[in-house]
Amino acid sequence: MTQELTGKEVADKIHEGLRARIAALAEAGVVPRLALVRMGERPDDLSYERTAIKRADALGIETVTCVLDGSAAQADIEGLIESINQDASLHACLLFRPLPSHIDEQAVCDALSPDKDIDAVSLLSLAGVFTDADSGFAPCTAAACREVLDFYGIALEGKKVAVVGRSLVVGKPLAMMLLRRNATVTLCHSRTADLPAVCQDADIVVCATGRAKAFGKAYFKAGQVVLDVGINFDEEGRLCGDVDFEAVAPLVAAITPVPRGIGAVTTSVLMAHAVAAAELAGKTG
Amino acid sequence: MTQELTGKEVADKIHEGLRARIAALAEAGVVPRLALVRMGERPDDLSYERTAIKRADALGIETVTCVLDGSAAQADIEGLIESINQDASLHACLLFRPLPSHIDEQAVCDALSPDKDIDAVSLLSLAGVFTDADSGFAPCTAAACREVLDFYGIALEGKKVAVVGRSLVVGKPLAMMLLRRNATVTLCHSRTADLPAVCQDADIVVCATGRAKAFGKAYFKAGQVVLDVGINFDEEGRLCGDVDFEAVAPLVAAITPVPRGIGAVTTSVLMAHAVAAAELAGKTG
Repeated sequence: MTQELTGKEVADKIHEGLRARIAALAEAGVVPRLALVRMGERPDDLSYERTAIKRADALGIETVTCVLDGSAAQADIEGLIESINQDASLHACLLFRPLPSHIDEQAVCDALSPDKDIDAVSLLSLAGVFTDADSGFAPCTAAACREVLDFYGIALEGKKVAVVGRSLVVGKPLAMMLLRRNATVTLCHSRTADLPAVCQDADIVVCATGRAKAFGKAYFKAGQVVLDVGINFDEEGRLCGDVDFEAVAPLVAAITPVPRGIGAVTTSVLMAHAVAAAELAGKTG
Repeated sequence: MTQELTGKEVADKIHEGLRARIAALAEAGVVPRLALVRMGERPDDLSYERTAIKRADALGIETVTCVLDGSAAQADIEGLIESINQDASLHACLLFRPLPSHIDEQAVCDALSPDKDIDAVSLLSLAGVFTDADSGFAPCTAAACREVLDFYGIALEGKKVAVVGRSLVVGKPLAMMLLRRNATVTLCHSRTADLPAVCQDADIVVCATGRAKAFGKAYFKAGQVVLDVGINFDEEGRLCGDVDFEAVAPLVAAITPVPRGIGAVTTSVLMAHAVAAAELAGKTG
């Protein structure tokens, strides 16, 4: 029987832990406050923003929505980030990306204080992931993958993991995080020769390419654990992952569905990072 | 016939390119100047320092040796780094490591300006390697591995590379640099299950563990390219690599010897970075 690694149970457990920590912060007179920074009105950003606000409300985390016009200047968005850095009442900041094309996005990301950078957009935060630093936050989607593996008791020590996709939001940071847990990690991508064979050779396969249903049966074998990080739309306009779930699920030991898989955990990780940022601000502030 | 990938030819070619660039700098009235920063009198540091000064002299790069007592305080070494950052006549800085155990080494490394950090000791430099930034320098040993592969025309695109060792001076940064060149990279380490099989499965194997002659015939197969980054001493006190060269060389297609391999290129890469730092200072200064 294939195990479906659904995200809801993972998210529920994260929320359970967060409620106790948010209550403890409340006793100290602190409500975690999260700034949501958006330029323009991209539908993807608006959708993520709604999800984040709803989740934050349910947990008792305050959100502050900061919106700039899509045509705003570099100095405007950098000034906004700087004001968030300076505002001690804001513990965390989520910056919706990509920013408009006239903006130097990395400069904006790097302007954000690492203490508030709960999705690892700045170079310093990413450096922390690369060097196994114990400070700073990892990108939420990569962290969500690790949460799912841990919740379902999937061992990493000495296991072969194939990570397909080398982005800075999933592939590369996740590779570093799994390496730290003593997995043997192979970083694969569009130029990998015989990708099906490389995937079949692994114990755990993470698909993070953003290509709808690109991974069919040929990529997998019995006994594997599959994490599908893709959020795409198929030809009929339905939400789907990178993996052809119908074809692959019967073959492997365990697989995350899309929707209701990794994506269902990412927002919870974001909230966990916001709470951790509030706790840290209390200790150092 | 096994090809011996000796470092001298690689270093010679690097020097040839550098001489022209150093001459061009001289016409603009600039002599590249490299600060060598050492605490105490560790024999390894003194040996590397001698090599660096000799190489720099031969090329026409000035070196400035900055030595602190091994018992100097954190503020002393950080103050020295800060003075190097401020000194426009110094283009580059090599910090001998490890620093004495009473020093917070990462804080010292992070104090160094990325423009002068020619061996990628600071978090920001490492972040640049992780994110494929076009600015900043890579760790010299990792860069030396790439130089050797390029000099001998060993293709990386689509090739499987096993990198054994996950340090921040070789394993992790080299993995990122080879990934950028579209290799499929597996990061292995002491906890990798069945390491011989993982190494045998690769087209190129990089051994960077610091364990003398730990890699015997069982790890390799015909046709492979082997880079041996180890600099160790065997039971008889002779310099040797991580690979049992005598046993492995006849089996594989190409292999770097120790000594006369990667190590012979590292100091040349250091000089190339120092020259590049001087060139950049001229453009921005």
